[in-house]
Amino acid sequence: MKYAIGVDLGGTNIVSILINENGKILARDKRSTEGLKGKDHVLERITESINAVSSVKCQVSRPKKLKSTTDIIGIGIGTPGLVDMDKGIVFEAPNIPDWDNVNLSKIYRDKFGLPTFIENDANSAALGEWWIGAGKGTKNLICLTLGTGIGGGIIIDGKVYHGRDGYAGELGHISLSFDGPECGCGNPGCLEAYASAIGILKRTKTLLKDKKNKKSRILKLAAGQISNITPAIITQAAKNGDMLAKKIWKDTGFYLGSGIASIINIFNPEIIVLTGGITGAGSLLFKSMWETVRRRAYKNPLKNLDIVKGKLPENAGAVGAAKTAFQRIENNN
Amino acid sequence: MKYAIGVDLGGTNIVSILINENGKILARDKRSTEGLKGKDHVLERITESINAVSSVKCQVSRPKKLKSTTDIIGIGIGTPGLVDMDKGIVFEAPNIPDWDNVNLSKIYRDKFGLPTFIENDANSAALGEWWIGAGKGTKNLICLTLGTGIGGGIIIDGKVYHGRDGYAGELGHISLSFDGPECGCGNPGCLEAYASAIGILKRTKTLLKDKKNKKSRILKLAAGQISNITPAIITQAAKNGDMLAKKIWKDTGFYLGSGIASIINIFNPEIIVLTGGITGAGSLLFKSMWETVRRRAYKNPLKNLDIVKGKLPENAGAVGAAKTAFQRIENNN
Repeated sequence: MKYAIGVDLGGTNIVSILINENGKILARDKRSTEGLKGKDHVLERITESINAVSSVKCQVSRPKKLKSTTDIIGIGIGTPGLVDMDKGIVFEAPNIPDWDNVNLSKIYRDKFGLPTFIENDANSAALGEWWIGAGKGTKNLICLTLGTGIGGGIIIDGKVYHGRDGYAGELGHISLSFDGPECGCGNPGCLEAYASAIGILKRTKTLLKDKKNKKSRILKLAAGQISNITPAIITQAAKNGDMLAKKIWKDTGFYLGSGIASIINIFNPEIIVLTGGITGAGSLLFKSMWETVRRRAYKNPLKNLDIVKGKLPENAGAVGAAKTAFQRIENNN
Repeated sequence: MKYAIGVDLGGTNIVSILINENGKILARDKRSTEGLKGKDHVLERITESINAVSSVKCQVSRPKKLKSTTDIIGIGIGTPGLVDMDKGIVFEAPNIPDWDNVNLSKIYRDKFGLPTFIENDANSAALGEWWIGAGKGTKNLICLTLGTGIGGGIIIDGKVYHGRDGYAGELGHISLSFDGPECGCGNPGCLEAYASAIGILKRTKTLLKDKKNKKSRILKLAAGQISNITPAIITQAAKNGDMLAKKIWKDTGFYLGSGIASIINIFNPEIIVLTGGITGAGSLLFKSMWETVRRRAYKNPLKNLDIVKGKLPENAGAVGAAKTAFQRIENNN
């Protein structure tokens, strides 16, 4: 039996797992990223997390410094930012200062003596859900990570589709309109600008300034502080019957459904997996998403299509990162 | 040396070629489809066209009824409509009455004794351009066929990406806006509704009704008949300095560029190939298309990207259909 370590580097937490080639998770570690303390600190946190999962009591041999001669054959790291997979270098990650031009592959290969591969975080989540999550057994899967921003991952024939330079899968940056809200990427009207947490909260703040929404209790649930509002608070308000909160989720479902309709017409996928905090809104969001998809997408590719929540909300990224290591070692690159 | 026959069934013409496995075209036939005369007539026209290219004087042996023992190993047919590739059946093609539930594979396999494969027409064009056209030597290519409607083909690792049921690649049905012009597919705001010949002509007619456009000479070039206006006439007017005609192409470039920007963010392709009559507008269209792409797409995937006109304007579909036959015979399906 072969084992790999998968690391999911997030803006808030680092999640690491030890997993075998059959997809069984044998150990897991979660610790805060503490990104604001800078690059070297985060690199050390990753080291601690890898040590934690590789030294637990399990079937795997566990020397103090892991060697490639052990049963653990490699490390995969899912990271935000632009990823040069061949060189193992990550560029321009948001949320972690100095996280630019970092040769993660070299750093951990030298430290642990194991081949180390990196992958974009959304691609890792897609691969994780494909391998042992909601997309298990499929060939073609699309994953949308609905969080602070919106990431995407495209799985074709069981592999991440990377495009020419590794930048493919930016599904949050499908344009939904010509003159919509400005996105972080600089383009107006991206799916992310409408349906990410950032987009939803921006729209909420604008709506709360409108006098006709003065009955809304969203602000009260946020202790009167507009900066305290989160998607979870909007969900809570909607569940309490707040009309504005319901409208915000209904509109978000329409925007999300509009983007997904295009994705369906482009990919005719077997399954679309939605992950990330925004999915916590549940049917408040999904009902209008489905209505929009049914209205806007072609009928034929809808017949056999599943659009589901991810099954690995805590682990998809780390699982996919480990799978990246397995796949790349198998393909000798 | 192996040979295949490729047939491109269009609403107006049937184009057939005989081509060898190195991509050298040895014979070509073009004849009108005469689709209005119904299914059986069109099937007969295809037979005649196949006979024409297989009986020319060339290196290939040419028995009256082709046999699989000859050097010609198979037939590929690119057809409009929904294609069930496995069964070889085409459904619901526009422009040809009764062209529904036609088992093209069986009909021509029985007639010529050769394995016969079918493929969607836009996918065929994409595969043709990838094999010996503008995309020769690339791995990942996106093709947009800009004609009466807008078709799309996605080539990944040298193969057409079909999705779950074969419906993938409907790139003309990416939504550009929430409430744009209604598309033939029923959805408002599809790329096709803005940038196909149908979409352009509809917009032109509306604009010509506006008094402020009364100086435009588009209508005069169409002999005063609004129904005579074609994209070629709008191009001619623009080249003569007609402001409205220039604006129509500039707007079309903006719409096309908006759709292509999303395609770039999704696919990070090596090359995007544009084919079809609309590309005849040349720089009138491409200038604003490029401006929009540069403004709306991510910068990184743009660095190495080519967006070019197809190199096989007359033959891409037939060449790709033949390549489909080569590929499927090689893969034993």
